[in-house]
Amino acid sequence: MNKVRMELSRILIREFNDYQIIELREVLPTDVGAEGESGASGRSFPIVIGLPEAQAIERRLKGITIKRPQTHDLLANVVEGLGAKIESITITDLAEATFFATLDLRKDNGELVHIDSRPSDAIALGIANNVAIYVAEHVLDAAAKEDPEVG
Amino acid sequence: MNKVRMELSRILIREFNDYQIIELREVLPTDVGAEGESGASGRSFPIVIGLPEAQAIERRLKGITIKRPQTHDLLANVVEGLGAKIESITITDLAEATFFATLDLRKDNGELVHIDSRPSDAIALGIANNVAIYVAEHVLDAAAKEDPEVG
Repeated sequence: MNKVRMELSRILIREFNDYQIIELREVLPTDVGAEGESGASGRSFPIVIGLPEAQAIERRLKGITIKRPQTHDLLANVVEGLGAKIESITITDLAEATFFATLDLRKDNGELVHIDSRPSDAIALGIANNVAIYVAEHVLDAAAKEDPEVG
Repeated sequence: MNKVRMELSRILIREFNDYQIIELREVLPTDVGAEGESGASGRSFPIVIGLPEAQAIERRLKGITIKRPQTHDLLANVVEGLGAKIESITITDLAEATFFATLDLRKDNGELVHIDSRPSDAIALGIANNVAIYVAEHVLDAAAKEDPEVG
């Protein structure tokens, strides 16, 4: 599977809407170490997500911690407590207006395990540690031309 | 730590409220294999939880699955994918009107790992597999006399 490195470029939260929007943007080679220098901008696409996941993404992106672990903090603590690391997030498919993703976990014995996830949960989990986000090339081709789809 | 076996006895969901209530009830010895025969009822206490966690508890209790994994389904799949099992849930403390709990995970090498969790997340995770819920005796003593606290 050919895949493309992406980054979270926008979070739009409207608390009174049931659904929120995040946007992923292609990371261009020139972005590495010299962000925006070329003036070129990568392909991007929006994903429609739920409010709790959008709030978790925003909070964990900003590094805000709450007295007790929220659900995605618990998920991060479970991964760490079981001796694994989040290696990457991969958006693998787009079908019937819905994105599918995997959480790519490296076990302490070196084995790589892929767990099916909604992109929103995977990004909420990975964003706190700047985990690499990939999108399958065929998904990017389809999504970059479309209206927002659910993720 | 002396601890007491509990069970989820009620879920009260009011969609237009920010906070929901679940109730835990002491499992009495006579409950095992002969539920309710004695007519005695154990001590119980309510916990105030958030709407997403209440909905996750209700859905996973009823065994309703959705096309894609929701956050607590993902958490269950991560535990399983990393070769661990949820052995129990323990409500360990009550401080400043807030319950604290641990998720007690058995790793594939036999090691028992305790991960800090809100009771609501732990119960949403464990309820699908009828994982044992324990409450520390001193927490039960305090909580069974009080108004609902946050968990």
